[in-house]
Amino acid sequence: MTTTHHIEGVETHGVSFAAGFRTAGLAAGISAQAGKKDLALVVNDGPQHRAAAVFTINRFAAAPVQWSQQVVTDGRVDAVILNSGGANACTGFEGFQDTHRTAEEVAELLNVSAGDVAVCSTGLIGERLPLEKLLAGAGEAAANLGDSEAHASDAAEAIMTTDTVSKQAGLTVQGAGGSYRIGGMAKGAGMLAPGLATMLVVVTTDAAASSEMLDRALREAVRVSFNRADSDGCMSTNDTVLLMASGASGVEAGEAELTEALTKVCQDLALQLMADAEGASHDIHVRTFNAASEADAEEVSRAVARSNLFKTAIYGNDPNWGRILSEVGTTEAVFEPEKVNVSINGVEICRGGGIGEDRSLVDIAAQRKVTVDIDLGAGTQEATIVTNDLTHDYVEENSAYSS
Amino acid sequence: MTTTHHIEGVETHGVSFAAGFRTAGLAAGISAQAGKKDLALVVNDGPQHRAAAVFTINRFAAAPVQWSQQVVTDGRVDAVILNSGGANACTGFEGFQDTHRTAEEVAELLNVSAGDVAVCSTGLIGERLPLEKLLAGAGEAAANLGDSEAHASDAAEAIMTTDTVSKQAGLTVQGAGGSYRIGGMAKGAGMLAPGLATMLVVVTTDAAASSEMLDRALREAVRVSFNRADSDGCMSTNDTVLLMASGASGVEAGEAELTEALTKVCQDLALQLMADAEGASHDIHVRTFNAASEADAEEVSRAVARSNLFKTAIYGNDPNWGRILSEVGTTEAVFEPEKVNVSINGVEICRGGGIGEDRSLVDIAAQRKVTVDIDLGAGTQEATIVTNDLTHDYVEENSAYSS
Repeated sequence: MTTTHHIEGVETHGVSFAAGFRTAGLAAGISAQAGKKDLALVVNDGPQHRAAAVFTINRFAAAPVQWSQQVVTDGRVDAVILNSGGANACTGFEGFQDTHRTAEEVAELLNVSAGDVAVCSTGLIGERLPLEKLLAGAGEAAANLGDSEAHASDAAEAIMTTDTVSKQAGLTVQGAGGSYRIGGMAKGAGMLAPGLATMLVVVTTDAAASSEMLDRALREAVRVSFNRADSDGCMSTNDTVLLMASGASGVEAGEAELTEALTKVCQDLALQLMADAEGASHDIHVRTFNAASEADAEEVSRAVARSNLFKTAIYGNDPNWGRILSEVGTTEAVFEPEKVNVSINGVEICRGGGIGEDRSLVDIAAQRKVTVDIDLGAGTQEATIVTNDLTHDYVEENSAYSS
Repeated sequence: MTTTHHIEGVETHGVSFAAGFRTAGLAAGISAQAGKKDLALVVNDGPQHRAAAVFTINRFAAAPVQWSQQVVTDGRVDAVILNSGGANACTGFEGFQDTHRTAEEVAELLNVSAGDVAVCSTGLIGERLPLEKLLAGAGEAAANLGDSEAHASDAAEAIMTTDTVSKQAGLTVQGAGGSYRIGGMAKGAGMLAPGLATMLVVVTTDAAASSEMLDRALREAVRVSFNRADSDGCMSTNDTVLLMASGASGVEAGEAELTEALTKVCQDLALQLMADAEGASHDIHVRTFNAASEADAEEVSRAVARSNLFKTAIYGNDPNWGRILSEVGTTEAVFEPEKVNVSINGVEICRGGGIGEDRSLVDIAAQRKVTVDIDLGAGTQEATIVTNDLTHDYVEENSAYSS
């Protein structure tokens, strides 16, 4: 399965699409699955080494998250090493030592400072990583870095866990100061995390920008992309979104244009994650509009997106608007019940808080994408949360196939 | 299936166990299921007619909830009529008129004031009730009231929707002033609500008590019973817990003893609801202890109880403590990650926020009940939330069998 549908302007390019980056992905024997690529290295050759990152806010943040948070504090990252096959979460002081040792190894291999090497891990919680294999793999990766599309694909594959396809997205930005590139890869999804934890995302650009600007642009892009993809409401211990900028294009990025382009790449990757969510048969776009505030719209959409009753109804191709209103009614958003309308796939089956069009007019089964539009009749703001239906396969994959 | 396990001191008695109450339950043709009992009437013959109630806080509260909230305001309720086969929610002004008309009919039949007749409905949202059948059924019920156990059982059956067994609980209280009785019935569960919405509970007592005291006692009992049973996190539009007191025992109840006894009956009914939750194969008692506050303990237990990943793991008989810590880590409770211990069925598989006992020592499959004990190491308070596992049957019943 490699049919990736991108949003407009985005194409399948990876972390070495932007100039100044080399990468590698290979099988280091970390994963329990023999021969699976499980280690990736992404190196920023500069001339700039600016970076920003967003991490899980889970208080049981994994060792690599704790480490990388420190690394990115000064706005400089020279390389990131990522592994699947183990999350290195809830592994105590020894787990943190393992992460530290990994960064030191990469630093030595690349002749940079360990304090500028970020680390990401994904896989089972509560088990130590096989450090010798990891360090040997790092050496092999450093010796095989390259900037071809094949190199980037290898890296994107190496971070997969229960993903069935790798996720990459690239964009060429025609900026005010000239053109530059953005490329990225992703796996999992923070909020569709299976027992094999975590969403990991690495985005690179050859634009020149300050780390402060990168930080602002990344936070805004994540806010309206990954943070609005909510497959099962669960938050992982390892979620990391890392942005690195090499400045190799020589083009100074404008903040608004960079933010917009970065948002596009992040939204594209987020939609790829939802399309590959475990066991899902539908992607559901829950849009709340005519809200008094964006926060209200987001609260309402998220409440609906997290309802197991609603999610099972969609799986059953049932336009059950009662289950939608029930969730809207639990929020503190500004609205009057008798002014709320709800449409599913464009059919307004609830009008004025009561019965609207005939529900038999709604066809859910035909397409993977389902749109729910909730009109609060209370203002002009809107927000969309993308989620999945709750299926037998979700239960199966999360009960039978993890330990 | 009629093997009801009660908590200590509680037995299978219904709403006419307490003196001063008569009841009836019968098939009025409201339910789509031919011949199913679907209408119940509970009448308080006094001498007192004191009452208190707790309702859903859903802003799309159904017509019967809106009506009954007004009825109970003055602390007096003479009778309650309940129907399955339709929730009368999101049915607009006409739906409210239907409820009003129903109360008027019952008032006329019993020669009381319509303003003292509560109404409860449960079933599908967004459809009008068949009013003629409902009113005819009310007449039949009023003509067949009685205080036998059979009468009470009929009423308990009449309010069932997807329940597979009826739920009743009775208790004799040896109070300081003499002995009195409490009896009750329940269906569904507010937070395990299927498309067929709602938890409905009616509890009766022949104790003499002021409506203010009944209100305080009921709120406390509900807080630590129904509000801590959380099967799928969804809140219905029709949830109602109604307490009626006849004073027929002539015994003045003490507040502490009444609160304690009422809590027992409510906890027993709540556990019966969880034991019959749709499609569940395990009841999971998530207890958080050594918390800095009861609110912290409840927040932590509820976060774990609502995690689909945790609930599917338990269904797969997998003692996946990583999924528990992940949820604990999303809360704002006071704790230090390295001081948190987690036991499943008595085996401490997570110690100090890391790896503890061998997970293979945990046996989940053997029993329906699963206990999770989370030691926050931050104080002396505790709270338990009871939930269910997330199973194929849950998905099936909520996707295929509702509309």
